[in-house]
Amino acid sequence: MNKLPIGVFDSGLGGLTATGHLRSILPNEDIIYFGDNARIPYGTKSPEIILKFALQDTKFLLSKGVKAILIACGTVSSNCLNEVAALADIPVVGVINAAARAAAAVAKQGKNSVAVLGTNATIESGAYETALRNMGVESVINRACPMFVPLVENWHPTAEDIATNAVVSEYISPVGAQNPDAAILGCTHYPLLSEVIKKYLPNTQLISSGVCAAEELKAILTQKGLLNTAGGKTEFYTSGGAEAFVSNAKLFLKGESCNTAQHIDIEKY
Amino acid sequence: MNKLPIGVFDSGLGGLTATGHLRSILPNEDIIYFGDNARIPYGTKSPEIILKFALQDTKFLLSKGVKAILIACGTVSSNCLNEVAALADIPVVGVINAAARAAAAVAKQGKNSVAVLGTNATIESGAYETALRNMGVESVINRACPMFVPLVENWHPTAEDIATNAVVSEYISPVGAQNPDAAILGCTHYPLLSEVIKKYLPNTQLISSGVCAAEELKAILTQKGLLNTAGGKTEFYTSGGAEAFVSNAKLFLKGESCNTAQHIDIEKY
Repeated sequence: MNKLPIGVFDSGLGGLTATGHLRSILPNEDIIYFGDNARIPYGTKSPEIILKFALQDTKFLLSKGVKAILIACGTVSSNCLNEVAALADIPVVGVINAAARAAAAVAKQGKNSVAVLGTNATIESGAYETALRNMGVESVINRACPMFVPLVENWHPTAEDIATNAVVSEYISPVGAQNPDAAILGCTHYPLLSEVIKKYLPNTQLISSGVCAAEELKAILTQKGLLNTAGGKTEFYTSGGAEAFVSNAKLFLKGESCNTAQHIDIEKY
Repeated sequence: MNKLPIGVFDSGLGGLTATGHLRSILPNEDIIYFGDNARIPYGTKSPEIILKFALQDTKFLLSKGVKAILIACGTVSSNCLNEVAALADIPVVGVINAAARAAAAVAKQGKNSVAVLGTNATIESGAYETALRNMGVESVINRACPMFVPLVENWHPTAEDIATNAVVSEYISPVGAQNPDAAILGCTHYPLLSEVIKKYLPNTQLISSGVCAAEELKAILTQKGLLNTAGGKTEFYTSGGAEAFVSNAKLFLKGESCNTAQHIDIEKY
């Protein structure tokens, strides 16, 4: 048993979709969440900037004494998981391998075809494609969707909304035409668009990368004997405004609530 | 005469719309441009974060020995012009007063009504409304348009595009129903959406805040005897990726070209 908290970080609110699942499967763990809302989005930035931000995020979580880190950000997971793991020297789980494994398992029951939906930086890294090919997936369809994060953060992306449907249709219809077995939602914001994405991918199983990563982290903590049985609270930190964080967090959280958040200056880390 | 360069900064590429105009009216000035692409957008962030970023941007320009600063960012101009001016101790021009004066002049020929289109932070600051009221404008219609920057940065916001029209229509149709005399494009990204905005504001004169600020800076430099007659080059700096900056800059620049840009670490300032 290990009573130290689990650390989770993301470029903003998206990682809360993973945190909500983590809470539901590990009710007795303490969790420290950091969202880098002051510097969102990561996915349109250069690899050097993404690495710098990721290491600062990691140092902040380490300063809180975490026993493991869940990188709930597809952009960081695909660009610099190894660098984060080298700095942290504790178990670090990203979203790539966990989601790729789940998608590959689905694909092998079908025609062995997987679509990857992600930010520019995630798609350009090729990390999902490499992982999927190594797992024997034959057909990988890559699709960068840079408008999805702004839609989730700044719009009302409901199933019937015209702008949302126009954006999702443009990105996803060409993918739907190839009818993949599974599609990885390679950014933790994207589950909030699942209902609309599903309209353009009706026969494809959507895989939430954040949910898969939470499951993988549970397996690792179990295997290493690091689970807690006495915790259960979550602390939220953000580099942006605390009030805005709290008021938007409810969109993302399921099985967890966020009543308060603390602002921190991430550039000090 | 003063041969030192003029400094211009923005959260990203939007300020290039002001820079292009500055180049066309001041062909013999040297210009230093800084775009904070690593931390864009500013307009959805808290006032504290915006101030911090603005002072760092200012310190970078001061380190280049500029003789005056054009804040080509509506969010910074509306939130912390005074703080930037206090730090800089050289002429500093923001977009607010220049654009408000131009809009008020148009409004006084009509029914004295002006619309302000800006980011969340610009609208919430109330800076445009205060300036317009002080200039005697009777009716001020405020409209935050947080999806406009992502549309310009990550989409193809053409006049016929369905998503662009849906977003612009939702923001602008209620403004058009009030038929204001002038509408301030209170963010320097917005001129790239003028053609679409015009469809929903057919009888309203659009005012580019960046163009107005460039004109005001020229007037101040002229009045203070600070003009240069021997320069004419522009240097571009960005906190983001230099290649991406150069390839996207051409969308924004008119009367100026950008063949190379240098990456700098803005957090050192």
